[in-house]
Amino acid sequence: MPGNSFGRVFRITTWGESHGPALGVVVDGCPAGLALSSEDIQVELDRRRPAQSAITTQRKEPDEVQILSGVFEGKTLGTPISMIVHNYDVISKSYEDIKDTYRPGHADYTYDEKYGLRDYRGGGRSSARETVGRVAAGAIAKKILALEGINTTGFVKQVGHIVAEDIDFGEIEKNPVRCPDARKAPEMIKLIEGVRREGDSIGGVVEVQTTGLPQGLGDPVFNKLDADLASSLMSIGGIRGFEVGMGFDVARRRGSEANDLMYMGGDGRLRFRTNNAGGLLGGITNGEDLVVRIAIKPTSSIPKPQETVDKYGNPKELVVKGRHDPCLCPRAVPIAEAMVNLVLVDHLFMHRLSRIGES
Amino acid sequence: MPGNSFGRVFRITTWGESHGPALGVVVDGCPAGLALSSEDIQVELDRRRPAQSAITTQRKEPDEVQILSGVFEGKTLGTPISMIVHNYDVISKSYEDIKDTYRPGHADYTYDEKYGLRDYRGGGRSSARETVGRVAAGAIAKKILALEGINTTGFVKQVGHIVAEDIDFGEIEKNPVRCPDARKAPEMIKLIEGVRREGDSIGGVVEVQTTGLPQGLGDPVFNKLDADLASSLMSIGGIRGFEVGMGFDVARRRGSEANDLMYMGGDGRLRFRTNNAGGLLGGITNGEDLVVRIAIKPTSSIPKPQETVDKYGNPKELVVKGRHDPCLCPRAVPIAEAMVNLVLVDHLFMHRLSRIGES
Amino acid sequence: MPGNSFGRVFRITTWGESHGPALGVVVDGCPAGLALSSEDIQVELDRRRPAQSAITTQRKEPDEVQILSGVFEGKTLGTPISMIVHNYDVISKSYEDIKDTYRPGHADYTYDEKYGLRDYRGGGRSSARETVGRVAAGAIAKKILALEGINTTGFVKQVGHIVAEDIDFGEIEKNPVRCPDARKAPEMIKLIEGVRREGDSIGGVVEVQTTGLPQGLGDPVFNKLDADLASSLMSIGGIRGFEVGMGFDVARRRGSEANDLMYMGGDGRLRFRTNNAGGLLGGITNGEDLVVRIAIKPTSSIPKPQETVDKYGNPKELVVKGRHDPCLCPRAVPIAEAMVNLVLVDHLFMHRLSRIGES
Amino acid sequence: MPGNSFGRVFRITTWGESHGPALGVVVDGCPAGLALSSEDIQVELDRRRPAQSAITTQRKEPDEVQILSGVFEGKTLGTPISMIVHNYDVISKSYEDIKDTYRPGHADYTYDEKYGLRDYRGGGRSSARETVGRVAAGAIAKKILALEGINTTGFVKQVGHIVAEDIDFGEIEKNPVRCPDARKAPEMIKLIEGVRREGDSIGGVVEVQTTGLPQGLGDPVFNKLDADLASSLMSIGGIRGFEVGMGFDVARRRGSEANDLMYMGGDGRLRFRTNNAGGLLGGITNGEDLVVRIAIKPTSSIPKPQETVDKYGNPKELVVKGRHDPCLCPRAVPIAEAMVNLVLVDHLFMHRLSRIGES
Repeated sequence: MPGNSFGRVFRITTWGESHGPALGVVVDGCPAGLALSSEDIQVELDRRRPAQSAITTQRKEPDEVQILSGVFEGKTLGTPISMIVHNYDVISKSYEDIKDTYRPGHADYTYDEKYGLRDYRGGGRSSARETVGRVAAGAIAKKILALEGINTTGFVKQVGHIVAEDIDFGEIEKNPVRCPDARKAPEMIKLIEGVRREGDSIGGVVEVQTTGLPQGLGDPVFNKLDADLASSLMSIGGIRGFEVGMGFDVARRRGSEANDLMYMGGDGRLRFRTNNAGGLLGGITNGEDLVVRIAIKPTSSIPKPQETVDKYGNPKELVVKGRHDPCLCPRAVPIAEAMVNLVLVDHLFMHRLSRIGES
Repeated sequence: MPGNSFGRVFRITTWGESHGPALGVVVDGCPAGLALSSEDIQVELDRRRPAQSAITTQRKEPDEVQILSGVFEGKTLGTPISMIVHNYDVISKSYEDIKDTYRPGHADYTYDEKYGLRDYRGGGRSSARETVGRVAAGAIAKKILALEGINTTGFVKQVGHIVAEDIDFGEIEKNPVRCPDARKAPEMIKLIEGVRREGDSIGGVVEVQTTGLPQGLGDPVFNKLDADLASSLMSIGGIRGFEVGMGFDVARRRGSEANDLMYMGGDGRLRFRTNNAGGLLGGITNGEDLVVRIAIKPTSSIPKPQETVDKYGNPKELVVKGRHDPCLCPRAVPIAEAMVNLVLVDHLFMHRLSRIGES
Repeated sequence: MPGNSFGRVFRITTWGESHGPALGVVVDGCPAGLALSSEDIQVELDRRRPAQSAITTQRKEPDEVQILSGVFEGKTLGTPISMIVHNYDVISKSYEDIKDTYRPGHADYTYDEKYGLRDYRGGGRSSARETVGRVAAGAIAKKILALEGINTTGFVKQVGHIVAEDIDFGEIEKNPVRCPDARKAPEMIKLIEGVRREGDSIGGVVEVQTTGLPQGLGDPVFNKLDADLASSLMSIGGIRGFEVGMGFDVARRRGSEANDLMYMGGDGRLRFRTNNAGGLLGGITNGEDLVVRIAIKPTSSIPKPQETVDKYGNPKELVVKGRHDPCLCPRAVPIAEAMVNLVLVDHLFMHRLSRIGES
Repeated sequence: MPGNSFGRVFRITTWGESHGPALGVVVDGCPAGLALSSEDIQVELDRRRPAQSAITTQRKEPDEVQILSGVFEGKTLGTPISMIVHNYDVISKSYEDIKDTYRPGHADYTYDEKYGLRDYRGGGRSSARETVGRVAAGAIAKKILALEGINTTGFVKQVGHIVAEDIDFGEIEKNPVRCPDARKAPEMIKLIEGVRREGDSIGGVVEVQTTGLPQGLGDPVFNKLDADLASSLMSIGGIRGFEVGMGFDVARRRGSEANDLMYMGGDGRLRFRTNNAGGLLGGITNGEDLVVRIAIKPTSSIPKPQETVDKYGNPKELVVKGRHDPCLCPRAVPIAEAMVNLVLVDHLFMHRLSRIGES
């Protein structure tokens, strides 16, 4: 299959270029009977939108979503849900100077190599605006999961060398960096503002946790839940790493440290002494919280002059203009949540087909 | 789709339980006319096989492969290639004591929760033996890629706290730990032997590099090459993290450090001053070497007594018997290579459909 | 996968209800570099549009298409092509009386049974308007095929008992019934006008022929070209049968009559004395013209009173109002062509991956 | 995807050449907990096997199936079920004379054109032996459907000009031609024996009916149940047409004749006065019996001398030796049933995901 669809039985197809007339998504496989309105979608898009705070880009993208199909009298029909967001704040002029020049860290060069041409305006299809469709679809997934008591929360775990230590979900949306550690949030903000002043950018880590998961989600062997989560999250632009539970730290550990020992909880439910595995065993949920993290590169578009070449092979020095986030992490939170939720709904539905008696 | 197939136009389906009559794989989408013999497959299976050295398990699994279809007079037919490996060294008796008891770190519990029953002998489908089919299929992918000058090499980058520094491909197969650093290999071996004596196990990191890649492999947005690589590698048992290029280290970096600057090479080809992106831009190969890494947990099966429960909810103390690798990394190398090669062939073929003129 | 996508490497996803805000399609897998404008699409939509002549419905559906993504400066980008058609001539009021009453021959009842609710306005998703997206996507397929010299032509072969005998492609678009036999066209028109006056409707057969096909299109065993054509054409509403070449007539034949004997043509190309197989052998094109036919039921919406029930189980007598085609065949021609072209492009691309040397 | 897999959530992959070491199938997506033994499979393979009677080929193909995975202690595990049938009665010598000569009506030429080479022994992958895997997989589908009270019955409706009129399921397996009309069966047998004596073969029609279906199976718009049935049945070798319900006869009908009028049955269930639609409305089951038919060509392999060419372009006269069925219909019955059952299970499972409340 071509690359613009994701999921098996809850399947999305996104489309749209950054500066084209619109972007959107078609969600196929949403069951009938779900209460759904454009407000359900808009609230998530608003969390993704630029210009939410001083530390994000000041580009204006109202990103108003319209549902074009699949919903009738407030309920889903079981037919494809098509959602569209029109593009308005399109200053294509500001991209004229990079029409022929490859921006370091961007996909300009590889799109040209792959396709022989590209929409250079704002990165075209490789723009982060592409995630508008993902977030819109993810909002539907979130509603379905909520009916089952499943909730996904993302937050900024790390910016540069600053790492959140106290994880308080209640703090996350109180600060513009979406840090769950009230003490570390100001430090992160200060760091981000500092790099911006220097004409630079900074990387970080986003963590996503899901609570309320039943046991049994995940399809061995190639659609293990962690494999699908990795695919979904690595498909976001600018991600350089994915880990689950203990993650890369596991490389330094012994089996006796890493294994999560089992016991019977007071409620008669099997529990684990630790959650090093991040909620999965053999790629299947074990009833503990799902914990995944992604490493996010520093924004590639920086005003600092950088060495590059143009499409004709001439050396160039490039100063990227435009309005860019100095740190991608805060706005990556709702995107990462969306991808996790999309994977979970797909697996929730597939799981209903696991046993012969489940009719 | 159910979870036992991988790939789009070069698609594999693996099957088999650890202690069933056989394991195998069907490869669909291999073009006609490729010279292929069972020896091509066997050489890769032999690299995956246990009991290759003192630091791996001493289980005997000859793992002789037979090609059942898709090849005629030494050439592939364009029809499905079915390959089978019969199981011989099956000591099911040694698993009787874990029939009802959940091994920490294993999928025993989650399989029971998902399916309501499981083949407890040797882990059944969740056993690492499942990778026999992956490696067999990967051998075909490797042959196809070699025709294009594309070569993939995996090695053990890290065991516990010991990290390879000098990367010399020529050293890898000279030591049993598959470490490319001749100076670090003995340290790694010593560490592995030490943890084994203690009845424990140790984690590590495997890195895979691919050379000779053309520009343009990778399908935005959900089948970016890194997304598919993450999915393929995270689907191997015991993997806790995936990264590409600079990986998680990117979280601490600034844009001016992380961006790979571009210049024109002496050969008239666009080159990059650094390879922090690991050979990809926007999920598409940029002509530099592909560099990915996976974090591998310490073997879960350890002889040390561990707290657990049985399927009836009774607390148990478990001492896992049987013959297990104290470190999964050396044998994970050919498996990781296989998964990378499977992804690359799939993308190589899809790439041929990228432009209208390519007929 | 859910049911609203079609194709493997040239893949379309349609969406939209008959009386929703819009209908559309996303085409994923169109190669980059194809010259494409909305005029290319519009010309095909105009052939599908109602009210083209006195024998079709007089509903006004301008069906103006807008390309929202995937095309830049007149060329395809290799990214998804999203196309939209807004709904205007929406007289939902006329459907109020069938809100709760099941129309005979329509999917009202089965949608209610499947989904528990339905958009009753104009049939919702089960309306023939859904084919707008198919025809739009098919127009792109047609352009790609034309570059290879492949041309698909559909026509009305039969209406009621009247069967076209002389097949002259030049006649097809000269008469409103799209009949290739100038002598039979007036008879068909007369029959259609007759049944309309009686408050009834009439069935027929549409044939589609494709010329210029190379040998080798078709993927055994489940994606034989005829299997995919059957699927694509039977997925159009109101189709009751599919046949290729000699079709059902083959049941009465002997092998010595049905086999197409082979000889060497004057141009050094292998040819067939007859084309009973309709251009395929083993589901793969043999270089002869592709010939398929579909049986189309008489329009279900007729003004004659019919016995039915409502959703509460009450018996009803229904007189379907609204403006409906008395014969579906003429407007089915561009839809059938579109489906054939969509299948052919998919197979044309897959075929490029058949042999190892084809890089 | 390549062409050797079928189904979405109940997915099969077949492999094997006619004269290779073995043929087989992998079934992915079978739920856990189904009682399954090789006897369940064997009974269906025995119905497909040659040499069952005087009117079928006398080739000996014992076709003993072995289950290699996915079943443990008599129950399915939820993991892939791999089944294998070894080839024994392999007289490759008898195919030497057609190594380079294209048999009329066979895929020899198109395989050569597509792949550049072929396994000429017994037709290789294009042999009817390929259906062994389909029938084996279909036996599992049949067991699952039986648990829901769904039963599929195929029979020979027509041979040459002789058409069964009385449909008595109890008669079908009583005569070697699998005709449900006790009076017509001897006529069909006489016709088949006659054409064989003449060194010829004869076509026919197989009908398949399914009873006990719930309402709601079928996924608009591209996976309508009839679209998937058409695809599945047209993918069998030698099929030239597919129809549902009234089929091609619908072309001659008026809407007032073809519409199935609705009324409330005595049991409070909505019923239809007729079943012209063959159990479907809008591609979704309506609770009436499913009725489909396929047109089967006369066997291509006939002893009569036929004009053809060899792969070097030389004219040849060919007399096909070997042991072939003079009429494909009787043995096509279990194959057609298998394909229908495979489609139905896939849709039965997908249907469980149609509504939000169904958890």
